[in-house]
Amino acid sequence: MDDILTIEGVAADRLASALGTPLIVYSERALEDRLCEFKSSFRHAEFDTQVIYASKAFSCTAMLKLVENAGCGLDVVSGGELAAADNAGFPMDRVVFHGNNKTPDELRLALKLGVGSIIVDNPIELTEVERAAADLGVCAHVIIRVNPGIEADTHKYIITANIDSKFGVSIYERDTVFEMARRAENSRHMRFDGIHIHIGSQIFGIDPYIAAVREISEFVSELEKEVCGVKVLDLGGGFAAAYVDGETPLPVSDVCSQILDECYRQKKALGLSVEKIMIEPGRSVVAEAGTTLYTVGYTKKTANKKYVFVDGGMSDNIRPALYGAKYRCDAANKMNAPRSEKVCVAGKCCESGDIIIEQTLLPKLEPGDLLAVYTTGAYGYSMASNYNRLPLPAVAFVKDGKARCVIKRQPYEDMWRLDADLTVDI
Amino acid sequence: MDDILTIEGVAADRLASALGTPLIVYSERALEDRLCEFKSSFRHAEFDTQVIYASKAFSCTAMLKLVENAGCGLDVVSGGELAAADNAGFPMDRVVFHGNNKTPDELRLALKLGVGSIIVDNPIELTEVERAAADLGVCAHVIIRVNPGIEADTHKYIITANIDSKFGVSIYERDTVFEMARRAENSRHMRFDGIHIHIGSQIFGIDPYIAAVREISEFVSELEKEVCGVKVLDLGGGFAAAYVDGETPLPVSDVCSQILDECYRQKKALGLSVEKIMIEPGRSVVAEAGTTLYTVGYTKKTANKKYVFVDGGMSDNIRPALYGAKYRCDAANKMNAPRSEKVCVAGKCCESGDIIIEQTLLPKLEPGDLLAVYTTGAYGYSMASNYNRLPLPAVAFVKDGKARCVIKRQPYEDMWRLDADLTVDI
Repeated sequence: MDDILTIEGVAADRLASALGTPLIVYSERALEDRLCEFKSSFRHAEFDTQVIYASKAFSCTAMLKLVENAGCGLDVVSGGELAAADNAGFPMDRVVFHGNNKTPDELRLALKLGVGSIIVDNPIELTEVERAAADLGVCAHVIIRVNPGIEADTHKYIITANIDSKFGVSIYERDTVFEMARRAENSRHMRFDGIHIHIGSQIFGIDPYIAAVREISEFVSELEKEVCGVKVLDLGGGFAAAYVDGETPLPVSDVCSQILDECYRQKKALGLSVEKIMIEPGRSVVAEAGTTLYTVGYTKKTANKKYVFVDGGMSDNIRPALYGAKYRCDAANKMNAPRSEKVCVAGKCCESGDIIIEQTLLPKLEPGDLLAVYTTGAYGYSMASNYNRLPLPAVAFVKDGKARCVIKRQPYEDMWRLDADLTVDI
Repeated sequence: MDDILTIEGVAADRLASALGTPLIVYSERALEDRLCEFKSSFRHAEFDTQVIYASKAFSCTAMLKLVENAGCGLDVVSGGELAAADNAGFPMDRVVFHGNNKTPDELRLALKLGVGSIIVDNPIELTEVERAAADLGVCAHVIIRVNPGIEADTHKYIITANIDSKFGVSIYERDTVFEMARRAENSRHMRFDGIHIHIGSQIFGIDPYIAAVREISEFVSELEKEVCGVKVLDLGGGFAAAYVDGETPLPVSDVCSQILDECYRQKKALGLSVEKIMIEPGRSVVAEAGTTLYTVGYTKKTANKKYVFVDGGMSDNIRPALYGAKYRCDAANKMNAPRSEKVCVAGKCCESGDIIIEQTLLPKLEPGDLLAVYTTGAYGYSMASNYNRLPLPAVAFVKDGKARCVIKRQPYEDMWRLDADLTVDI
């Protein structure tokens, strides 16, 4: 092995020289392969299927093009994500619009752009959707988000289906959901398409999905008996990424086929009219494809620790501080050197919690060395901030030995670009 | 009392109509008063004194002008903060440059701009500072950051002086600090000015400061005996803000006078040559002056909770999710209505952890009502992100019944402004 890490045939040190650090590098091949893997695995002879990429995990114009070219749909959660999809020319009929608190402006924008579905979170929103659709003279395709009450075993901040979740209407509030479906079905301005559930994040196995499909199928069966047919079942996301050694998510193809098989079993057993199954992977599409390159700065020994400081931190990856997230790393220009030192990799933000990796083995590092932190493709750039006025990093896609910059590094001028001194007419 | 919250004579609903929500509103009077209070309290007949505002807590051109006009100095922690201070025309001789991992480029920028002091974190940095100063033909004023090993009783993410802190050189590594002082003192390109310590955040009382002054004075005394005189003692920040009822920080004037009195006692007792004392308040200057106005959207009852959803969230205030921070709030357009409902205030981000206030009493709220969350002036905007592609909020200063917009709301176009498709020459 060369001493220099290469990603898709491109040397990390060349990338760092050309684009600076911190730099988030995506294997474009890995992104394409993963989208393709989902798309080709999530198929069933008896169902229409749709793979919807959850763009909150990572988005930019180049990423949206990959999603479009793969034939996938897009999950957006705000006016900003809608506008970005529109700007990228993403086919709006493949867009589903999520969120627990969409504003009236956002709903109007979504309907004006002609999004494929609105995932309606609650009864008040249904009223807003109907009003906006009536105003605009359009028909809103509505999917109702139901909280199935199934918890995947994961970090509390990313559990989303506990009984008191802020998302959706609880499966135990049957009458509320039925009434929403009835209203949508009977409205001149809405069409009731189906039911959405989401059971959590970082789900490594199949059992929670199977349990959720069974539970929601029972519910859909009752709904169909009492109200109307359910065409679409959207099973949300939650597919795990492997951040550290020992994490082994079930292969995508297995998860997809088992989910669809269970859906079909339930459809048959309960006589459901469901025609289409959707899933919404986000993290699992992009996390492992991304690597952050940092330049090493100072190192420091304290009583019980040795620090390696890098030129980024919680500003470009807040997940360790926010969730206690774990990462693997390598010295990208010393790939063959023995990992002789137990170190803590910390960022440059003025905050003690700004730690990237609490403990890892690395070769002895000097200022100017390169550190590659793996699996940073999801919720890194998308949650990045200008904390400490650190500019947002650049983002590159690499493939077949070639690189392209898909997001430019933010210039210092951006730190005061929105500053103003405007009298407000009160 | 009027039903509408007013801030410095400006009605919250008028502000929301004029500038939209989420909107961060600062009482400009409170900012000025607080800066003035620090400036006038932190005085002593026998010392030069300097109050240095820690701009990472909140910064924009208008804020930097207030700091400048109050006669205070500025603590910057990155090239971005340096560049912003330069852009605002802030007097560079009043700037101190902090950080555990300043890059060579940042150090050169600081020296080129002529910052007042560089707070040197470790021996490697001292070498870098000397090299950069020599290259540029300037003299760097150096203050060495010592970790005093005193922990203020506060949240673990904001403890900064534990023995394994990433900041500074431990007080127990006497020889390392002495050698750094000696090198700085003897260099043609550096001047050794003094010692910096920082003992934590959200310190409500005086005891930790007194303990720290005593400990560092002993250390300075030894340093003066063995190496050279110490002109400056920079005691850092940590002054508390009151976020919720029952939090009562000691008045600024008391903290300031007691700190300086103790410094003087130590100077006399130990025969120190210290001439100047500095402090670096950040949070305590801006936190209580800031209020975030949100528009209420949907409300939702779950089995054990009632949610009130607002049109912002962890994107404009990540402190509840990151630190478990607590806040107070009011219904800004229903100030006299009885607080009849126990609710959870949650944001609109697609994440279960996006909670602003876990539990509070509020009047019954409807979509379109205004919610004011208090004490959001520190580490709100400065840590804000475009997570979920929510635009950064606008920021207004209000005073004497008038309002001015000091940071414009970010437009949707910013979500793809840095997107590119540039071939990288590898």
